[in-house]
Amino acid sequence: MPKDRISHNLRVLFNPASVAVVGASEKQDKLGYHVMSSLMTGKFARKIVPINPEAQKILGIKSFSSIAHVEGPIDMAIVVVPARFVPEIFEQCIGKEVKGIVLITAGFKEADDPQGTQLQNILADLVNRAGIPVIGPNTFGVVNLHQNLNASFTPELSWLRKGGVALVSQSGGISHLMAFMAMKSKIPVSKVIGLGNRLNIDFAEIVAYLMEDPHTRLIVLYLEGLDDPRELMRISRENLGKKPLIAFKSGSAKTADRISRSHTGSLAGKNEIYDGALRQSGILVVHTMEALLDLAQALCSCPLPRGNRVGILSAQAGPGMVACDVCEQEGLEIVRFSDQTHRVINDILPPIVHRSNPVDMGPVFSDPASTAAIIRAVLKDENVDSIVLITLFASANRDVLEGLGDHLLEWKQKKPVISSLISPPGIWDEQIDLLEKAEVLTNFPTPERAARVMAHLWQYKKLSSASPA
Amino acid sequence: MPKDRISHNLRVLFNPASVAVVGASEKQDKLGYHVMSSLMTGKFARKIVPINPEAQKILGIKSFSSIAHVEGPIDMAIVVVPARFVPEIFEQCIGKEVKGIVLITAGFKEADDPQGTQLQNILADLVNRAGIPVIGPNTFGVVNLHQNLNASFTPELSWLRKGGVALVSQSGGISHLMAFMAMKSKIPVSKVIGLGNRLNIDFAEIVAYLMEDPHTRLIVLYLEGLDDPRELMRISRENLGKKPLIAFKSGSAKTADRISRSHTGSLAGKNEIYDGALRQSGILVVHTMEALLDLAQALCSCPLPRGNRVGILSAQAGPGMVACDVCEQEGLEIVRFSDQTHRVINDILPPIVHRSNPVDMGPVFSDPASTAAIIRAVLKDENVDSIVLITLFASANRDVLEGLGDHLLEWKQKKPVISSLISPPGIWDEQIDLLEKAEVLTNFPTPERAARVMAHLWQYKKLSSASPA
Repeated sequence: MPKDRISHNLRVLFNPASVAVVGASEKQDKLGYHVMSSLMTGKFARKIVPINPEAQKILGIKSFSSIAHVEGPIDMAIVVVPARFVPEIFEQCIGKEVKGIVLITAGFKEADDPQGTQLQNILADLVNRAGIPVIGPNTFGVVNLHQNLNASFTPELSWLRKGGVALVSQSGGISHLMAFMAMKSKIPVSKVIGLGNRLNIDFAEIVAYLMEDPHTRLIVLYLEGLDDPRELMRISRENLGKKPLIAFKSGSAKTADRISRSHTGSLAGKNEIYDGALRQSGILVVHTMEALLDLAQALCSCPLPRGNRVGILSAQAGPGMVACDVCEQEGLEIVRFSDQTHRVINDILPPIVHRSNPVDMGPVFSDPASTAAIIRAVLKDENVDSIVLITLFASANRDVLEGLGDHLLEWKQKKPVISSLISPPGIWDEQIDLLEKAEVLTNFPTPERAARVMAHLWQYKKLSSASPA
Repeated sequence: MPKDRISHNLRVLFNPASVAVVGASEKQDKLGYHVMSSLMTGKFARKIVPINPEAQKILGIKSFSSIAHVEGPIDMAIVVVPARFVPEIFEQCIGKEVKGIVLITAGFKEADDPQGTQLQNILADLVNRAGIPVIGPNTFGVVNLHQNLNASFTPELSWLRKGGVALVSQSGGISHLMAFMAMKSKIPVSKVIGLGNRLNIDFAEIVAYLMEDPHTRLIVLYLEGLDDPRELMRISRENLGKKPLIAFKSGSAKTADRISRSHTGSLAGKNEIYDGALRQSGILVVHTMEALLDLAQALCSCPLPRGNRVGILSAQAGPGMVACDVCEQEGLEIVRFSDQTHRVINDILPPIVHRSNPVDMGPVFSDPASTAAIIRAVLKDENVDSIVLITLFASANRDVLEGLGDHLLEWKQKKPVISSLISPPGIWDEQIDLLEKAEVLTNFPTPERAARVMAHLWQYKKLSSASPA
């Protein structure tokens, strides 16, 4: 397989000048309709060519009976016809010198039928010789927000905020889950990629591509099983420290292990072994989808902590204690502040509250200036690598976020501030959005999630700065 | 201490005919202003009496210089004056035959100062002799949504949806956290209660009261430490199976353990010991605030599963696998369906997908009738105690929830259906809200949270049906 050609063509696949939809349709019960709709909803500004044996036009765009009959070149083909027609379509794509294919059709290696595997092998043979990368089969597609390219069957994926996070999954369902979670948390996304049954583009190839992709700053993986974990680990190690690489792996249950073969055509394998091996290669594996997306959100906007010494500042004691528990469980140190920091805090807070780490800022919880003074003192403290900042709204402290951004600004590249600023719906939402856009803090809906993500930032920092094995 | 009188008076405290605010103010930097505002925002329809040595009127209501000067009886006093004035205020309350006190003021037992403890002991002596229950000191207050009584310093707590869940915490910050999480998840709440430093009303007393409260169906506790865990356990055992009692306990970390005394005046204690002891008495302890509120949400609207045998039905294979992992980790069995169920499913789904448990409903993911037929078959299956139902939105399956409620209706009292139906913001929200209001399913934002809550429902079922020790 001509690897260089495939990797060059992968760049074209994500940045095509022209896209053909083989199996385009106007019938809403056909995925070919939804793919056309995605390209148009996404406002893809380049050439869209529907291919359908019968139609003259589809959604107002001139249609062709075969890709062979299209005038001019076609960079990318999205294929959404029944499995038995796919080999012929692939031959036509090769004849047309298509650079990349997204194969949405299912029913290949994952089918409970040896013919499916045979068919997939035939396809692999064809495209590997031609040097054509194929995303799929059995994929929902790919989205490249930086090209307004929504080559999937879900137009709503174009609602994502454009940015630096690449979401890669072998399950289309999980791709959708990650994308909808990203929408909710306003995580800025570069690409959503469903690898499906990985004809010739597996995690290793896609990670290698994304490491070079100028729009991607951070790579998020959902794994079930890997045919060749060593290749992914090699690519990861080669790029250690270049861009964060974080993953969630399902398949811990015995049932999941059993069905993984049927779903994606690969063994899920022992999770503990994967965990350790992936971590060694610089991929941080976390253990829930929520933790995965939370970490992605923080990595987008926070510097990494230099060490594990956290300061916990909370406007209310209880939530601070809860954060404290999680920090310790996950390997952070609730550090002792310097004497200078203690002097500042003791000047501000009366002795009725806990004034060493974690700090109970209760007595000044409605006073922005005193709150900011405590935060500043702790950020300045050489003993402290990061801050978890917690405030629950009460009507008396409605204005406590005023001016907070200004105080945090000089620290935005230096020490991460993860917050859990929580109000009833609608009260602090805009202010928090502004603070997050300014990248001076990253906010989470519970103190536990804030604390956990800080621990994960530190774990990632350790992984990524380890010298390669 | 006259326990009977205290417990009778506790009912009056939550259902007062008249409320005095000692320390009421028109100054927005005083908590006394926010307490007045809470009573008025909450639309408390009975008598409100501001007490302030200087004012004639506060927020338009006639004010008195002392509670002693008020004409007619006062059922409840909310006290928000500095600590040193509190003994005198308590004497006046006793003189006035007040039935219950909410003591918001801080600076007693939790203060790093022996005078605080001494002051608290003096107060306890006074009110215990008089048989007056005191919520606090160092509390944000209490809210009884069924009386429109917001006796707290946070008016926005009146935004909660009225219903059957009592939220009890010794930390005001955590009370706010739980309340805001409940707002977000639309959990219907009966009362929000901040116990603070528990002068004479501790968890045991409040749980005993709530077990008799006709508006409360479910009790949620946030614990840091307990002075007398045995009393709470006794009350819990006495009421085993009457109303679900669920808890989260902080203080696992060594730091939290150390500061617990200073914050709430009691030792946090070894968490594992608490966990086991509380579970034995019928209180289910879960390990994150999110899990606690998720379980509360499910217990509001779901029947308990008769056993641990779950069916996992997912419109996409990957999210089904993730749910499967969590179910197995948490002690549920991914059960084998009956032959009859298999026949129904095999008639609907082609062999290219996984058709035994967990079921990959991918091929019919846009077809409401086929989806409903699979769900019905699995609900009917005698081998199955519960269903986890998962569907990620894609534009092709936009209408798949149509009519789902009708199919689930006959099962609403029989088998729990926990779902994770997930769309981009705004698409399925209304439909899901209707399904939840009809109590035919309970929905969560990730498959993992849906699976975890099902496991917790089963764990609670086991606890609550065990014969008392």
